[in-house]
Amino acid sequence: MNEERTFMRREIEEIPAATDRFLRDGLAPVREAALTLETTNPAYLATVARGSSDHVAMLLKYACELTLGIPVASLGPSVASIYGRSLNLRHGAVVSISQSGRSPDIVSVVEAARAENVPTLAVTNDAASPLAAASATTLDICAGPERSVAATKTVVSSAVACLSLLAECAGDRDLKAALQRLPQAFEDALACDWSDLAVALSDRRSLYVLGRGPGFAVSNEAALKFKETCQVHAESYSSAEVLHGPVSIVEEGYPVLVLAVGDRAEPAVAAVADELAGRGAQVFITSALGDKAQRLPSASAGHPLVDPLVTLVSYYRFVEAFALARGLSPDTPQYLSKVTETV
Amino acid sequence: MNEERTFMRREIEEIPAATDRFLRDGLAPVREAALTLETTNPAYLATVARGSSDHVAMLLKYACELTLGIPVASLGPSVASIYGRSLNLRHGAVVSISQSGRSPDIVSVVEAARAENVPTLAVTNDAASPLAAASATTLDICAGPERSVAATKTVVSSAVACLSLLAECAGDRDLKAALQRLPQAFEDALACDWSDLAVALSDRRSLYVLGRGPGFAVSNEAALKFKETCQVHAESYSSAEVLHGPVSIVEEGYPVLVLAVGDRAEPAVAAVADELAGRGAQVFITSALGDKAQRLPSASAGHPLVDPLVTLVSYYRFVEAFALARGLSPDTPQYLSKVTETV
Repeated sequence: MNEERTFMRREIEEIPAATDRFLRDGLAPVREAALTLETTNPAYLATVARGSSDHVAMLLKYACELTLGIPVASLGPSVASIYGRSLNLRHGAVVSISQSGRSPDIVSVVEAARAENVPTLAVTNDAASPLAAASATTLDICAGPERSVAATKTVVSSAVACLSLLAECAGDRDLKAALQRLPQAFEDALACDWSDLAVALSDRRSLYVLGRGPGFAVSNEAALKFKETCQVHAESYSSAEVLHGPVSIVEEGYPVLVLAVGDRAEPAVAAVADELAGRGAQVFITSALGDKAQRLPSASAGHPLVDPLVTLVSYYRFVEAFALARGLSPDTPQYLSKVTETV
Repeated sequence: MNEERTFMRREIEEIPAATDRFLRDGLAPVREAALTLETTNPAYLATVARGSSDHVAMLLKYACELTLGIPVASLGPSVASIYGRSLNLRHGAVVSISQSGRSPDIVSVVEAARAENVPTLAVTNDAASPLAAASATTLDICAGPERSVAATKTVVSSAVACLSLLAECAGDRDLKAALQRLPQAFEDALACDWSDLAVALSDRRSLYVLGRGPGFAVSNEAALKFKETCQVHAESYSSAEVLHGPVSIVEEGYPVLVLAVGDRAEPAVAAVADELAGRGAQVFITSALGDKAQRLPSASAGHPLVDPLVTLVSYYRFVEAFALARGLSPDTPQYLSKVTETV
């Protein structure tokens, strides 16, 4: 049985151990990076990333704004790579996120920033990568090799590295303690059974995935993985935006997955879930609030900034099985390759 | 015949006149706002907007980064409204965009910034709105009343106001001249016939809309209008991202609308269009480059930062007719109301 598991499944099941490894071996560089950030005291952060790593960047944005109150801008690498324009990043600091560290356009944005003495921090799974070489500071996410084209454990490990950095910068003991509880919470998350969702989606080609705040970042990631591994047209929306325009396509039976976490947005997110369910949509939600949507089981590490990752791990476990059930190979999605090189 | 036109169609047809009015009456406040920005010399801009106005904010982001080299961050109003966290916006300036100027969460972000002496600029269609009152500087987009729930002319007028501000700040004569050519270019855009696209989409429920850089901002807007007015699940992607994951759902005959403009990204955008067409997708593109995708006619004002708006006007003209052809009322989409109040 074991040898029949996909790489994607094995890597999802490695998430608790990979997180434990990072929390043991990866925190010394985090403390150094936090010291550097405190010294330079940037007025804003600028993130550079693509695909799933850009979803990690969005989680970093919400978490940074909520813990440190420092605004975060997402930079499109094309401004430099295609349009040839260099940005004036004075008072800022650049955080790049790339598991391979080999996306040339991301490397060139970082090189340009460093040449102007802007602080640069790379979050990567390869400390010997060109991105690490280009950056003043590197956080090695210590995730170990990832062979599935669909990234999972490197996504989670990159996010854990970013949250660890914020916890250190903010001196936030609650967040640090919650991070230490993550390996166990991820084990719990792997045991959550979302097979009711698979039944509801069986003949569907289109759905919405909703979240808000930090939960919106993982809803973006979930929507991408639905498309990538299951060929289902899932689109992510903020639960704040979905009722203004996008709701028009929600008809009787339309499936909606709502990734709520136990934070201050949860009541508003659950209210949107109930409203859509009241219109006849098939709504699933990771929350006990509300009464019309169907509840999916979820685990928790007891902190609103890390729980989106706990929910994401339950989703990953679900989506890999759902892809297989649809007769698709989640390790090698149609047309895709592992290293992203964009021009 | 005239009295049977929808509000949406009338407002789309008013775009050239509304633009002409702004370029005649709206530029004095633009020059004042540009002077204020030059004096405060922000290290970055922070935009606050929702829905279609947030697509204008994305166009502003690309245009600002490409003309002034100043990075732009998009602020989620929920950080303040839901999570109760105020941001430290030192060295920044806040630009809010809202046609009604009545979204309470956007107003409160602006009020918090102004209380900290952060420069605040509102772009709105109502100079007497709470948003204008909360802001240190206001640009009235002079678009006149908009009655259709689906916003069109206020989207274009807001974008013209933002681009006019950048042209003034950058002292960019080419951009200023191109803006003056917009009323005529919009007239030309209204005459472009995209009915081939309607035929291809007739029985489709799902498609991609692609763009890059400034063109990606209008591709986001086009995807929202497809959902809102036509109940078609259109999702927008950067042409740089679509080949890494999202491409998995593109099967034989899958429709793809590519909104290319004549800028440095055009060859790369057209190459993606050709690649998707080569895999059997039904690809339509507003570009003469490439040879496998089907060309849609487009107009031009002769500048890469304004031409996305010219293409958007052709799209608006198309999508209103397409909604009617599907038996839907584009003025009153399912479930929606005009003023967006989000909690």
